[in-house]
Amino acid sequence: MIPQNNRLWWERDDLGYKDGQLFFSGKSVTDLIGLTNTPAFFYSGRRIAANIERLHNALSQLDAYKIYYAIKANRFAPVLTYIKNNCLCGADICSPAELLHAFSCGFERSEISYTAHAMTNDELRLLADNPDVALNCDSLSTIRRLGQFCSNRKIGIRVNPAMGIGYRDNETLRYSGDKTTKFGIYREQFDEALRLAQENHLIVDTIHFHTGCGYLNNQLSILNEILDATHWFTDKVKDLKFVNLGGGLGVPHDADDAHLDLDAWAAVIKSHFGDKGLTICVEPGDYIVKDSGILVLEVNTVEKKRATDFIGVNGGFNLAIEPSFYGLPCEPVVLEQKTDKMKPVTVVGNINESLDVWKDNFPMPDQITEGDPLVFINAGGYASSMMSNHCMRGQVSENLLL
Amino acid sequence: MIPQNNRLWWERDDLGYKDGQLFFSGKSVTDLIGLTNTPAFFYSGRRIAANIERLHNALSQLDAYKIYYAIKANRFAPVLTYIKNNCLCGADICSPAELLHAFSCGFERSEISYTAHAMTNDELRLLADNPDVALNCDSLSTIRRLGQFCSNRKIGIRVNPAMGIGYRDNETLRYSGDKTTKFGIYREQFDEALRLAQENHLIVDTIHFHTGCGYLNNQLSILNEILDATHWFTDKVKDLKFVNLGGGLGVPHDADDAHLDLDAWAAVIKSHFGDKGLTICVEPGDYIVKDSGILVLEVNTVEKKRATDFIGVNGGFNLAIEPSFYGLPCEPVVLEQKTDKMKPVTVVGNINESLDVWKDNFPMPDQITEGDPLVFINAGGYASSMMSNHCMRGQVSENLLL
Repeated sequence: MIPQNNRLWWERDDLGYKDGQLFFSGKSVTDLIGLTNTPAFFYSGRRIAANIERLHNALSQLDAYKIYYAIKANRFAPVLTYIKNNCLCGADICSPAELLHAFSCGFERSEISYTAHAMTNDELRLLADNPDVALNCDSLSTIRRLGQFCSNRKIGIRVNPAMGIGYRDNETLRYSGDKTTKFGIYREQFDEALRLAQENHLIVDTIHFHTGCGYLNNQLSILNEILDATHWFTDKVKDLKFVNLGGGLGVPHDADDAHLDLDAWAAVIKSHFGDKGLTICVEPGDYIVKDSGILVLEVNTVEKKRATDFIGVNGGFNLAIEPSFYGLPCEPVVLEQKTDKMKPVTVVGNINESLDVWKDNFPMPDQITEGDPLVFINAGGYASSMMSNHCMRGQVSENLLL
Repeated sequence: MIPQNNRLWWERDDLGYKDGQLFFSGKSVTDLIGLTNTPAFFYSGRRIAANIERLHNALSQLDAYKIYYAIKANRFAPVLTYIKNNCLCGADICSPAELLHAFSCGFERSEISYTAHAMTNDELRLLADNPDVALNCDSLSTIRRLGQFCSNRKIGIRVNPAMGIGYRDNETLRYSGDKTTKFGIYREQFDEALRLAQENHLIVDTIHFHTGCGYLNNQLSILNEILDATHWFTDKVKDLKFVNLGGGLGVPHDADDAHLDLDAWAAVIKSHFGDKGLTICVEPGDYIVKDSGILVLEVNTVEKKRATDFIGVNGGFNLAIEPSFYGLPCEPVVLEQKTDKMKPVTVVGNINESLDVWKDNFPMPDQITEGDPLVFINAGGYASSMMSNHCMRGQVSENLLL
């Protein structure tokens, strides 16, 4: 936590301190946890709307575009219904259960885009029966088998431009690159994909690609190169209507990260596809929800072990896997600013695994005591949606703030 | 899969091919999946019993011992009731929900050992109210706070000998070592721990330590050094009755691993604590259940991408996290041996993440086709118990074979 202009790096109008008290989405976090036990997730409807609005503003420099929210990032039903009911955007789906869930939360089929890997025949039958759902096929096998269940259906082809992009060039967050991945159809098999689609009377109107996760301004030049490489594919599709860039737009995770400049991002897209009469589709997940959520835990242990000061809380990596496994921190912040004096601490969870560390050797105010709540920011995406009941410590509440 | 004496490395009497058909726990796997959809976990009661029996045989060279099964490895209720009902061993627990679950499956309080980190006050009250549960306190804070809720309770102290052990010396699987971890009380704070216990009228009768995960024969010399280091702690406890070595006993994960020689393991323990009138406690989890379970999935995609042959199945890392995140493979094996001809393939799951790879560049029979079941061995531990519903692909069945 490094103050910048009297504000910490993560503070913003709807998240920060007022008179030393933490506020989120217009509400005092102390008040919020008066109603619910910890561990508790809180999601800000206002922030979700603002993030989507920012995308709309940037993309409006294009002739036509669609935004599909990738619900795998956070599928909490009230969040989905809020997005749908306020007409903020459509939904990006990756499994039959997600499709039924999005429908159950109010989304129309025509507002849904579906991109999955290793699809079963049952899954393909479901998509054959629901032609209004935009379907992107990411393998020859999918195209061939879909053709057994329907014809004249419009489809997209997910391609793999063999180039990757990811947060700080993190390998685990790249979905394509030098190494051949399971995702999408490569140049080597693309002609066969088009032929298979034609043979099976499927109409290719979309080229889809998703090449990584969590990219920020530093990676925009890579995005430019990736878009450059996709023309090889788009040029081959006669009746192309849509180009779907997938998701991957990142948010800052610490003081060293700068926000993604959406206008610059949209300009890169426009420079490639601005004059072709195409509709550009994007599928952001984290960008919409990650900084719209906080996780509130409670400190139960403050203790020195050897020379290290530990802070133990009542929730672990099973509630938010990204800090331990992906190197994407959920920075812990205090509810009440009592002191400017900081000291390095190691914040750990209650799971019996050595990996269960929230933050290692991290400066925190030195007055944290047992019983204090501790707030973890950036917990709105890929936290509860990937949660497990490991050690049976998976009981949490989720709460949407409107 | 490298055949050894006409058998593959993982084959054994209750898991292997008969006339080219895969059998598990005396049953044809083809028959097993006739009743249930995939993804399906099957657990072998016989194998669980055999693994525990092997531990009993080895430990019988000690004067007195107790085995507690670490249920966090697999808490499927039928498995727990089977273990309890057949008097195979006690249960090791790490959370209030696990404690209630073990009780609900039939375990008596006196058969349960409880070791957790970052315990809440509610958790400590529960343990204060149930003094027959053996409780190991792993921090000063726990001892101090427990003392507020009870007195004259017997407790163990989890210590940290500052030495670690783990599968192939894998850092992520070591629970202690040079770096100070959250687990246990170090030498530097141990005198204070004893003093706190005495002040709070708590009776220390157990020293507990757990220093890593998945160790095999190659690591027995490290175990010896660790036990050597624990005397510093045990010598200081006047009324010591129990020494609890935790778990960490490993199973082979590929052809290069040798089984842990339990007699050699027990001999190491005996050499340290054989003549002290102590009861030795152990808390194996993986050792009991990991090779007692298989996960059956179905191949839906067989396809070359660029030059790589991919096999896509209807389940991913959300069902078994260890292959992707811990480097502990669940090796895929075929149901039916149709050919000796092998080719390298990459087996991938149906989760939209680049990490979702079961096995990369791995030799498999070259006649695998779409629709074939594929069996993943070593799926009995830390698979379903850590499962998530990521991408809403978490629907599985679990089945105990008796």
